[in-house]
Order: sequence, then structure tokens, then C-alpha cells
Amino acid sequence: MANAMLIPVILSFLILPFSAMALTQDFCVADLPRGDTPAGYSCKAHVSADDFYYNGLAVAGNTNNLFKATFTPASVNQFPGVNGLGISAARVDIGVGGVVPPHTHPAATELIFVTEGTIVAAFISSDSNTVYTKTLNKGDIMVFPQGLLHYQYNIGASPAVLLVAFSGPNPGLQFIAFAVFGNNLPSDVVKKPTFLNDAQVKNFKMMLGGTA
Amino acid sequence: MANAMLIPVILSFLILPFSAMALTQDFCVADLPRGDTPAGYSCKAHVSADDFYYNGLAVAGNTNNLFKATFTPASVNQFPGVNGLGISAARVDIGVGGVVPPHTHPAATELIFVTEGTIVAAFISSDSNTVYTKTLNKGDIMVFPQGLLHYQYNIGASPAVLLVAFSGPNPGLQFIAFAVFGNNLPSDVVKKPTFLNDAQVKNFKMMLGGTA
Amino acid sequence: MANAMLIPVILSFLILPFSAMALTQDFCVADLPRGDTPAGYSCKAHVSADDFYYNGLAVAGNTNNLFKATFTPASVNQFPGVNGLGISAARVDIGVGGVVPPHTHPAATELIFVTEGTIVAAFISSDSNTVYTKTLNKGDIMVFPQGLLHYQYNIGASPAVLLVAFSGPNPGLQFIAFAVFGNNLPSDVVKKPTFLNDAQVKNFKMMLGGTA
Amino acid sequence: MANAMLIPVILSFLILPFSAMALTQDFCVADLPRGDTPAGYSCKAHVSADDFYYNGLAVAGNTNNLFKATFTPASVNQFPGVNGLGISAARVDIGVGGVVPPHTHPAATELIFVTEGTIVAAFISSDSNTVYTKTLNKGDIMVFPQGLLHYQYNIGASPAVLLVAFSGPNPGLQFIAFAVFGNNLPSDVVKKPTFLNDAQVKNFKMMLGGTA
Amino acid sequence: MANAMLIPVILSFLILPFSAMALTQDFCVADLPRGDTPAGYSCKAHVSADDFYYNGLAVAGNTNNLFKATFTPASVNQFPGVNGLGISAARVDIGVGGVVPPHTHPAATELIFVTEGTIVAAFISSDSNTVYTKTLNKGDIMVFPQGLLHYQYNIGASPAVLLVAFSGPNPGLQFIAFAVFGNNLPSDVVKKPTFLNDAQVKNFKMMLGGTA
Amino acid sequence: MANAMLIPVILSFLILPFSAMALTQDFCVADLPRGDTPAGYSCKAHVSADDFYYNGLAVAGNTNNLFKATFTPASVNQFPGVNGLGISAARVDIGVGGVVPPHTHPAATELIFVTEGTIVAAFISSDSNTVYTKTLNKGDIMVFPQGLLHYQYNIGASPAVLLVAFSGPNPGLQFIAFAVFGNNLPSDVVKKPTFLNDAQVKNFKMMLGGTA
Repeated sequence: MANAMLIPVILSFLILPFSAMALTQDFCVADLPRGDTPAGYSCKAHVSADDFYYNGLAVAGNTNNLFKATFTPASVNQFPGVNGLGISAARVDIGVGGVVPPHTHPAATELIFVTEGTIVAAFISSDSNTVYTKTLNKGDIMVFPQGLLHYQYNIGASPAVLLVAFSGPNPGLQFIAFAVFGNNLPSDVVKKPTFLNDAQVKNFKMMLGGTA
Repeated sequence: MANAMLIPVILSFLILPFSAMALTQDFCVADLPRGDTPAGYSCKAHVSADDFYYNGLAVAGNTNNLFKATFTPASVNQFPGVNGLGISAARVDIGVGGVVPPHTHPAATELIFVTEGTIVAAFISSDSNTVYTKTLNKGDIMVFPQGLLHYQYNIGASPAVLLVAFSGPNPGLQFIAFAVFGNNLPSDVVKKPTFLNDAQVKNFKMMLGGTA
Repeated sequence: MANAMLIPVILSFLILPFSAMALTQDFCVADLPRGDTPAGYSCKAHVSADDFYYNGLAVAGNTNNLFKATFTPASVNQFPGVNGLGISAARVDIGVGGVVPPHTHPAATELIFVTEGTIVAAFISSDSNTVYTKTLNKGDIMVFPQGLLHYQYNIGASPAVLLVAFSGPNPGLQFIAFAVFGNNLPSDVVKKPTFLNDAQVKNFKMMLGGTA
Repeated sequence: MANAMLIPVILSFLILPFSAMALTQDFCVADLPRGDTPAGYSCKAHVSADDFYYNGLAVAGNTNNLFKATFTPASVNQFPGVNGLGISAARVDIGVGGVVPPHTHPAATELIFVTEGTIVAAFISSDSNTVYTKTLNKGDIMVFPQGLLHYQYNIGASPAVLLVAFSGPNPGLQFIAFAVFGNNLPSDVVKKPTFLNDAQVKNFKMMLGGTA
Repeated sequence: MANAMLIPVILSFLILPFSAMALTQDFCVADLPRGDTPAGYSCKAHVSADDFYYNGLAVAGNTNNLFKATFTPASVNQFPGVNGLGISAARVDIGVGGVVPPHTHPAATELIFVTEGTIVAAFISSDSNTVYTKTLNKGDIMVFPQGLLHYQYNIGASPAVLLVAFSGPNPGLQFIAFAVFGNNLPSDVVKKPTFLNDAQVKNFKMMLGGTA
Repeated sequence: MANAMLIPVILSFLILPFSAMALTQDFCVADLPRGDTPAGYSCKAHVSADDFYYNGLAVAGNTNNLFKATFTPASVNQFPGVNGLGISAARVDIGVGGVVPPHTHPAATELIFVTEGTIVAAFISSDSNTVYTKTLNKGDIMVFPQGLLHYQYNIGASPAVLLVAFSGPNPGLQFIAFAVFGNNLPSDVVKKPTFLNDAQVKNFKMMLGGTA
């Protein structure tokens, strides 16, 4: 049954369904310049294996900053192949004594793999401000449910590395302190909802890059 | 730790993750002229606070019509900021003796807040034509599950106002009577599926703006 | 065609499809004691119109507290009829000088109708800490995208009332300040991710109901 | 490489991942007695090929009724294997001169295959009551978008058969006329939202199985 | 109440809500040339009844090939009206002795209606390679859960016809044998993951249209 | 403003909204014994930080088998905290010369982080059997779209380790060869859809643990 004479028959078989199927959407690599929709970016017309590959998380981020920590994203904007696939990635480097301050991802759950070091990680639930906190070593994983405030800090004697997966291609990232103080909101306006006095607000604004 | 010397360090920290995040989709205000997709409109490139605000429901609609009632929508077409956010709004004014006749929203559940007056509201389930009906006063709320036939009418001595929330940015609205009679379907065709006689069909067509 | 003799025929017609359809899910009122699933609560077996109605938002909440404000929810736990329908409600009362401090809803977009008073409302985007702020008067509406930090405060001379719709039956509510300080996290642990000193942390904990 | 000695090795390999995977959800056949959730029924513990098979559409339904038509469902309640799979089926028989009167499916799009006869099928859009109508012959297919009013009737000289697929396991079915008139709503209440007079309402109630 | 004088009033009532609703999305017929997004194609601006109708499944496909079978799709690319509606269709013809070899649909559940002939159909679960197999006669239906390997073959004395519904507008189709052997992967690479020897790989490549 | 006298006031404020919110669903840790629904398992009543943590991926899997590779899952069954969160994890160890043979995950996209070694990874699209293949080194990531056939093999001189994230809590896993040959399907039945002869089928069955 298997001989060269059959090939033309097979090919004619293939041509029928597969030419009809030529636009089948197995994936939808983001065509970033064409802009976004609520479900993600428009699909690129021509793709290759490189679109599904990213090497930007291979090197450590620079932790020479106030927090001794940095976040390197592989969201749809850096890694267009994840568009529409319900997943994305990132890398977090935390130097000795470093901290990733409280933040939320409005649009995704986060799952971390600790690949170097020892950290404390925690999230806070919305119903009664319960703190769920764990010490994690190399090889451990932890999940932070979508939208909840969470933070991590290095308690070890060496740098820590986290590989991060998100349950969406565009998780968002909102550091609470920067959100409140790191912008041009007038101090008077910040005082109102934070119950801080003028000096406190100005101090936080100075520390976090805001302008009075 | 909090002093001005740290600010450049902080800013350099911020620049790394946030420039990379510059296209993060926290929201997707509709760019209406670019057209729709199954998940909503393409996102507008530049947005401001005004995009998330709408004042078109602040004034009463005109109830000087057969039904003594009117519906004022704040769907994605009037209020582009709700695009992709799974919610929209409307206002319903019902004059004394007025009625919102039986209708469906094919693409959203409806939740009403009664802010003025007293009404009867009801929906009809699809399994056995059970009617779920309630008298609602100021401050009461009621929910009408997606796609089910429902109606409201004023039973009070003063106008009624309903603020309406929908579980989607584009709920649709199909008044049953207009759907069947308020168009150019030939009377012969209407008779067939409604089991009405010719005179009845023509009468309804005349009443509801259809043409024979 | 329409006469009493036809009724038995019609009924026999109805019995066939509708008995078969007897479990059709037009809605799924929450049976709270049976517990939750990721998509909501199990459905109650017997429902009535009262399940789709709620009057708990009709009266003003008590604003005699530090914030001169209060939040009265009509989520699935108070209003089981919204289970599975992608929507829920709430009422916010803000006294003169009152404020709803910065908070997030991890699982829903919020849309507000101002029905009394004058407020400032704002949310902060996650990409660059941009603040989207508006002054709202009676009749105005505004939308706060899912998961983003937002706040409201009364700038008028009389109490303000907001009717709130959420794009899900269980939006969650996380006040940032309470999440960080209003619990039993040791001060040493709070200092780490917030960059506050010991006195500041203890002060906030005292103010917000936390224990050292 | 392929010889019997390898089998124990292979089996030990298989045992590791697959015992761990023993509860993997490839499907979720409905365990109807345990009740529904917003996403469908709980999963049956033990399933067989019979759960994914249904023969209830093989025979013609009885069209000896007023409409000369009948609807035979294969929704999750008849065919539990479709639970959670986003699809279900039905069969519609329409005798000569028969009609499926205007109805909606609140929770699914409908796609029909005409396998016998010639029909007219139509749906009505919600934006301007536009009627989309087609004559369909054997082999033709047509789609009716979710929640929109639609109807079909036989225009041929022989019975018509439609095989129906729905985009959800539990589409719902609401015949407009029965929803309004085929129940125990008092005539006074029906008159209000329908703008019919007392005699008309009573006539429709009699015709459609309702009680005054 | 029903007389011609009322019509202008009614029309003015209609103009208010319906002009505002003019872009309401009841459906979203694919505008194929504008390209795809993760949720489907952009919507066509002007549609007619023809967009919701397809007659390409009315005639038998050509089964004069190795498999004595063929697959005729009515996915979004052939039938743009199903865009965004969560459903699509196909027709499968299987000649006497014919077979549809093992394949998957990565993005949809499949439901088949047997309208001619007698077949065996089966799918294989992922947890323990259990085979769910049934013999199906005319009128029988069967469902194949999303992503699972399945196949069908004719065991009768006459051609078989299957009408197919998918739970999505773009189901995809991956014949396992063609996926592995029917392309230009070097034989050395194919040998690695299949555990076949060089002659076996070359034989399969020849049979299935691949190049060494 | 911040003094101990305020605390009772604050607490009374908190009690109102938060007692009402006591069942808020921030997460839904799987209560495995109560069984599954289409959207995941029922929620556990009492949870702790341990529910969101898993250490089962910290140690290398045993690669002493035919494939010199193994797959260690952290799906909802091993790691109940991911229930309903749209994400899960796994670890793949591939010894020198080892291979993960062609397989699919019917219900999730896969994203891999290479943390040790050098591999070739590839997936095959469904539209034209195009192979998307890349060589990956430590630190590289790659994404395999949902439902598509893919495989990986070690081309380096040392063991390779992949950390895997899935876009769902229960991805499924179907090794093609085992699905076809590794079960009790009669050889006669296997011959039909695979176009293999009897000796070939029996050979594969023996190699892959099936019974004739």
C-alpha cells in the first residue's frame, strides 16, 4: 500500500482540506504596530520559529538600585508569540537584602519558580487582610492569585532568582507605593485618601519619585 | 534611607520595567471608527480621564410617546471607556402609566436600581414560561438573567427612574413586538409563524411602525 | 384556528419539548451552604422572584467612622441571584469630608452612578502611575478598570451616594492600607517591603487596627 | 530497540506521570443528580463510551400538533456527555405547512443543517429589527446568532428535517408567544406591557394554553 | 389605541434608542482580508442574509484517494458568518472501506451526526490512553472532547456521511501521521522522537507526502 | 488623627463591610475529594499558606527509562492551590540522549524555561504541518500553542532541565504513540486507521506496552 504511486493521490487529498484551512488559527503572534483589542493584538501574517522563542530572560537584571531587585518582563510586548495564548513570563532578580515591594498584577495570576537563593514570599487576601506567607528555597514554587497584593524579599546570603509565569499575556504591574506617591498628584489630593499629613506625603513623594 | 540622593537610583529602577511595560493593557478604550471584533473595538492610542466618564444619563429622557417611557443607553458606542471591561449602563424613565414592553438583551444580564418611583418588573424563564415578578420601590434592585424576556411598568403616581447596569459593554436590545411587526416583512410571511390572521397582522404592523 | 379544542393539542406539543428541557439553566441562584467553585456557587433547586430581588441598598450606610464613609455590598453572598450572571452591586455613602481610601477589586471592573452629592474619583493605571481623575456630580457615571487602584472622596457640602455595579458577582475588595498594616504581620516583616522605619510601621498599625 | 525486555521499563515510565495524572479532566460527563453550577454539572466519576453517544435524534418527532412541528433536544439533560464542552444538539421536524414559531435561545448560537425538505428560516437583529431571511434546501446550513429572535417554516411539499447544533450544552428555548400568554399571569397584567385589549389577551391565552 | 395617528409618536420613540444603538453587536461577520485577532476576525461593515448561509456542504466530497474519505470544512474561512459565535461546521464523506485517520482539533470539541451509513468512531483520553469507541448508525450522534485524538471508519456496505459541528469557528485539524511525516523534517530528526529506524521513517515519509 | 481612641471606630467600620464579604472568592483551593466541575474543583473551606506552595518539583525526576526523560506534574491534582487560577506547572528532566516524544496538551498552552542543558524543541502547526523548531540553551524560553503536537530532545552533553508553565490548572497530556498503541485496542482495529500492516501494529504494541 505504501508506494510512490500513491503520493499524488495523497497530495490531492491533502490539497482539498488544507488549502481550505489555510488561515486556521493555531496561534496569533502579535503584530504590535497594528494595535491592541480587548482580546489581544492583531495576528502577524508571516511567522517563524523565532516568534515563539525569547532569550531576554537568560541574563540577570541589574539590581543596583534602592530595592536591590529588578523585574524583567517577557509579556506580549517583549515576546509577541504569547499573544492570545493565556500565558507569559518574567524573571525577577533579588540581590542580598533586596525586596520586591508590595504590588499587584491586575490581569493575571502569578506562579514563581525559585531557581536560586532563599526568599520570603507572601500575598494578602481581600476578605480579611490575612497574610499567606512562605519561605521558599531553590526548586520551590508558589502561586499568587490574580489581583491580590503580594511581595517577595531575599533572606539568604546570596542573590535570589525567580522565574515567573503569568496566566495571561499582559499581566500588568502596579507597585502600590509608586501608584500613590510616584506621580504628579498634588500633595493636597494625596493627603485626602491616605490620611497622611503634609510632611509625610511630601516625604513619600520625594522618596518615590513623585512631584509635589 | 529617604532622601533626594536616592531619587536617580529609583528612577533608573523604574525606567527598566516600566519602559518595557509601556503598552500594558490596563484598559482598552474603544476607537470606534476602526471597527469592532468579536471581543470589542480596537483600543484608542491616547486616552484621558474623560474617556472613563459619561454624563449622558444625568438628565431625564423624553417620555412623550406611546409607551410613556424611554431608554437612554451608555453602551460602548456612547461610552467608549467600557470597551472590553464587561460592563455598561443605561437609564430608563417611565412616566405615570408608562411601560417598557417585553424585550430581551441578547448579550447581557441586566441589573436595575430603582432611584425614583414604584414599578412592577418581571422576567419569564425559558423552561416553563414561569413569570418572576416583583414590585420595586426606591432603593430596590433586581436582576434579569441574560437573554430572557422581561418588562417593567410604572404603578405609582409619579415618574419612575431606573439606573441600569449590564454585564457587557454591548448588551443589545430587542423589543419583541417591534421585532415581529415593526419592519418590512410581508404580512403573508408574518402570518405564518405567528398564527395571526391577515387583519391582525396588519393591525399590529400599523401600530408598531411596520409596512405591509 | 384559535379555539378551545386546540388546547389539548398545544399542551401535548408543549409537554414534549418542555419536560425534556426541565433542567434548562436560565440562571443559577447560589445555594451558599453547598460552597463555591471557580465559576461560582452550586445552583439552588427551587427559586422564586425574591431570589432576584434585593432591598439591602435602600437605606444609607452608617458613616460615623474615621473615613466618614461606608460600603454596603450586594455581592453574591448578600444577593445570591447574581451567581453566575457576571454582575453585582453595592452602595457607597460618603459623608461631608469623607473618603473611600485607595483600594482595588481584584476580580471586577467597577462602574459608579453618582445619585447624590459631588465627589472626586480617580484610578491609577499600572503602566506609568498615571492618575485618571474626575469631579463627578449627580447623574454622572465613571468606570474603574478591573484590578486598578482607585479612590473617591466627597468635595461637596452634603453627603454623597454612589450606586455601584461590578462586572462580576464577587468583586473582592482590598483596601491597601489595611492590607499592609491592618493585620498581625510582625513590624519587622512590614518594614522590609515598605521601606518604613519601625516607628512609622507601628504608627500605621495602630491607626489601622493591626497588632505589632 | 523494540523488544519485550523494554516493556517493564516503559511501564515504569508510564506509571510515574500517569498515576499522578489520574484525575486529569479531558471531559466532564454530567452527574445530573448532583446539580448544576454556573459552568455546568459536576463530573461523573466513572464514564464509558456510551456517555459520549446519543441515539435520541434518530427517529422523527411527532408533528401532530397545532404547529405541525416539534423540537427534540439533545442538551446536557438528555446527553450528559456534552457537559462543559461548549456544544449540544437537537432535531427539528416540520411537517408540510408546519412552522417553528418565533423563539430565542438565551444561552447559545444555533447552527442548522437541513437534511430533508425546503424551509424558510429567518432571524431578526436587535439594532433595527432587520430581518435576515433565506430559503434553505437539503444540504444547506444557516447560523442564528445567540439570543436573537428566529423562526423557520416548511415551504415544501414534504416534511422537513433540521439537525441543530448549539454553541453551548444548555441553550435554553423561549417561544415568545408562550412566554407572554402561555402561563397564569392575570390578563390585567398582560394587557399592560402588550398594549392589547382584554379580549385579545384572553384570546391569545386560550390559544396558547394560558389561564386567565 | 392602534391607529395611524400614533405612528409618528412611535417612530420618534424608536429613533431615540435605536439610533443610539446603531452599532450594537448582535453578530460579527468576519471581514477576512483585515486579518485575525485572538478572538476572531474584525467585523464586516455591511452584512446580508447571505453571510449567515452556506451551501458548500450540500454535495459529497471526493473520496477517490488513499483514505477513501474527505473532509469539507465550513469554518470561519469558508463561512464568515460564524465568526465570534462559538460554532462552525463540516461534512465528512467516507467511502466503503474508507477511514478518517487519527487526528485532533486543537481548538474545538467535535459533535457528529451520522446521516448515511454505519461507522466506528473513537477517541482516546489523555489520562490513561483509554479508548472510547462506538458503532454509529444513521441518526446517531457522538461527541469528541476538545484536543483529544480521534478517528472514524466506515464499516458498512455503502458510503457514510457525517455532518459535523465544532464548538468554535476555527477548530484546527492535525492529522498525526501527516504532522510527523508529511513535511520536510530531516529523517534524522524524525527518528529521534519517534524511536523509528531510518528505513521506517523514510517509508512513512514516502507514504505521507514528506521529503527526506 | 492617628491615636488609639480611633481604633474601635475603625474596627466597627471594618466589621460592616468585611463580615458581609466573608465568603469573597479571592481564590478557590481545590477540595479534591468533592470532585470536579467543568470550571474546576469545589473550593476548600479552610486554607493556609501551604496550599499555595509546592515543593515537588525541587528534585530531579528519574530518567532511567526508554526515553531517558521524565515529566513531573504540578497540576491541580498535585498542587490544589492552582484550581481556578488559569495556571499550573511541571518539571521535565531529559538525560543525555533523551527525548520527550511527540505529545499534545489538549487543554493548555505550554511555556518552557530551560534551566539546565541544551535541547531542541519543536511544535507542528495544524494548517500545513509546518514544523517550528529551535535550539534552546539555559535561560531561553519557548511557547507551544494549545493542542498542537510538540516534542523536545537533549542535544547536549549533560542532562537538561525544563521548568514548565501551563495556561490552565489541568493541561492534560497525550503521548501520540501511547495513545494509538499503548492500550488494549485489537490489532485489527489499529490497522484500519493507521494504514499499518499486522506485523507493524504488533511491533508497536509490544514496544509501547499495548496488548494485542
